[in-house]
Amino acid sequence: MKATATANANIALAKYWGQRDIALTLPANSSISMTLDGLSTKTTVEFSGGLKQDSLKIDGHAASREEIARTSGFLDIVRKMHGTQIFARVESENNFPKSAGLASSASGFAALALAATRALGMELDAIELSKLARRGSGSASRSVFGGFVEWKKGSREDGSDCYATPIAPKEHWPELKMIVAVLTKKEKAVSSEKGMQLTMSTSPLYNAWLGSADSDLEAAREAILEKDFNGLGKTAEMNCLKMHSTMLTTEPHLIYWEPETIGLMKGIMGLREDGVECYFTIDAGPQVKVLCLEKDAKRIVKYLSFLPGVKETRVCGTGEGARIAKQGLF
Amino acid sequence: MKATATANANIALAKYWGQRDIALTLPANSSISMTLDGLSTKTTVEFSGGLKQDSLKIDGHAASREEIARTSGFLDIVRKMHGTQIFARVESENNFPKSAGLASSASGFAALALAATRALGMELDAIELSKLARRGSGSASRSVFGGFVEWKKGSREDGSDCYATPIAPKEHWPELKMIVAVLTKKEKAVSSEKGMQLTMSTSPLYNAWLGSADSDLEAAREAILEKDFNGLGKTAEMNCLKMHSTMLTTEPHLIYWEPETIGLMKGIMGLREDGVECYFTIDAGPQVKVLCLEKDAKRIVKYLSFLPGVKETRVCGTGEGARIAKQGLF
Repeated sequence: MKATATANANIALAKYWGQRDIALTLPANSSISMTLDGLSTKTTVEFSGGLKQDSLKIDGHAASREEIARTSGFLDIVRKMHGTQIFARVESENNFPKSAGLASSASGFAALALAATRALGMELDAIELSKLARRGSGSASRSVFGGFVEWKKGSREDGSDCYATPIAPKEHWPELKMIVAVLTKKEKAVSSEKGMQLTMSTSPLYNAWLGSADSDLEAAREAILEKDFNGLGKTAEMNCLKMHSTMLTTEPHLIYWEPETIGLMKGIMGLREDGVECYFTIDAGPQVKVLCLEKDAKRIVKYLSFLPGVKETRVCGTGEGARIAKQGLF
Repeated sequence: MKATATANANIALAKYWGQRDIALTLPANSSISMTLDGLSTKTTVEFSGGLKQDSLKIDGHAASREEIARTSGFLDIVRKMHGTQIFARVESENNFPKSAGLASSASGFAALALAATRALGMELDAIELSKLARRGSGSASRSVFGGFVEWKKGSREDGSDCYATPIAPKEHWPELKMIVAVLTKKEKAVSSEKGMQLTMSTSPLYNAWLGSADSDLEAAREAILEKDFNGLGKTAEMNCLKMHSTMLTTEPHLIYWEPETIGLMKGIMGLREDGVECYFTIDAGPQVKVLCLEKDAKRIVKYLSFLPGVKETRVCGTGEGARIAKQGLF
């Protein structure tokens, strides 16, 4: 009744922002991401008849009430699939800061989906696992797979055609790197889920964002398949800025950036003007991720280390999908 | 053949960004501004038969080639109106940093338009003066008037119906203040004129901006007439964020903000959460302007002085329009 799974975070190059169905986590637009080899969550789930409720430890500490509620809600879905009522003890460890715009909910719910189902003896195929992970966090649907991944929004109301599939395996483009520059480990004030709902209901720019999502998706997919670095970088950077424009114009404004985020954006643009091929992307948080080629990674890391506020950098390649670390009855 | 005029800067509450005709400075949308009493330019123009070309001094220094070219181009329009060919010596003094997002081109060209025409003995009425000032810098059309001003985009191709008119005089709302927080005195890398052209031709959000310009204009005008502080602040802040969204998504991205700009935006939002009525607006530059009521100005200035990067603050009320300081033949 116990299993341990590991999953990597993923960073979207054509991003997901907005849900057409909140309860089922059905997105308003499709998205494409790169699964990262450097940022991962390892989660152990143990179902046990003796428990009176689910318990959750994250990074060695008791989780918050909200985190427990979200995890328990997700486990309810797993319990319903399996036809059981027993509670679970969940322990999760991230090798990077959580809830800070580094996709910890993507790696976290992908690992949880795999560990929880295996702990109950269920062997879901990857597509079913992706659909299940989606219920915990939309972007977790993508972390089930390694390499480059597309999460199709689907069209059915029940979400049965809403899951991720691989575009290209992690071996497809080994030269491509993403440098994660951590500016703060603080958790964000407004969660992505809450932020998306506010944006959809108040931003006057949301429709313009949504209207260009499909063409960004096509452009990103094509650039990945053709290993067109500048095409991919340009698309990803503009896509990120469009998404943040919808956030900035949300009421109340969602300013996920820290002052130093602006410094890094300008720094990357400056490096590019100097002939270094690199592009930034930023999620719902202050951290800046820099897309680059392996040959330039060292130079960019060095440059970033001189910029104010950069606490840590990690050079990530494309990583593998969710996998079982340990499994067994105790 | 010599005259000295003074004009105040103005800060738009429903902003102007984009031109439908570059040569005639015809805007894509109408705008509304507040003329500020604290920021002014004083300009002396002396036409003299002995000069071989126009000369320009700004703040005691010889102007750059670009500044001279822009001023000379403007004087050509004045010379053509008057039917003269003689050159002029121009000296201009700002009591605030120029070309840094503090509307120095608005006060500068309003003062220049008035001084140059008077130096030639021309007595333009305010509307003709507004049209003329517009040719130097769009927002200068508004600085001809004091108080609250609307610059109507007009519909004619020759620009004959494109000028500013007052909405309310400066005495209308004496409690309203704008605190200008100067973060840097550096001149901006991309001028507003150039920036607008890039935005119109590349930003995928420009149409959404333009589509909401009229309703912001109506809302700002109504809020001014009714002295609805929160209505005006909310409209102005959102209008500013929409404009900056079009800038951020321009190719290459126009990031007029400095890191500290983000800190101030968040700071003002935080003050508001604490119950202080205040709203920010930002032009094509890093400086943050805070709209507030007189009763809160002192407290906000004190708060701003604690925020990183704030070099100087000025509390401005509504100011008067362009006026002649000195006139005469020497």
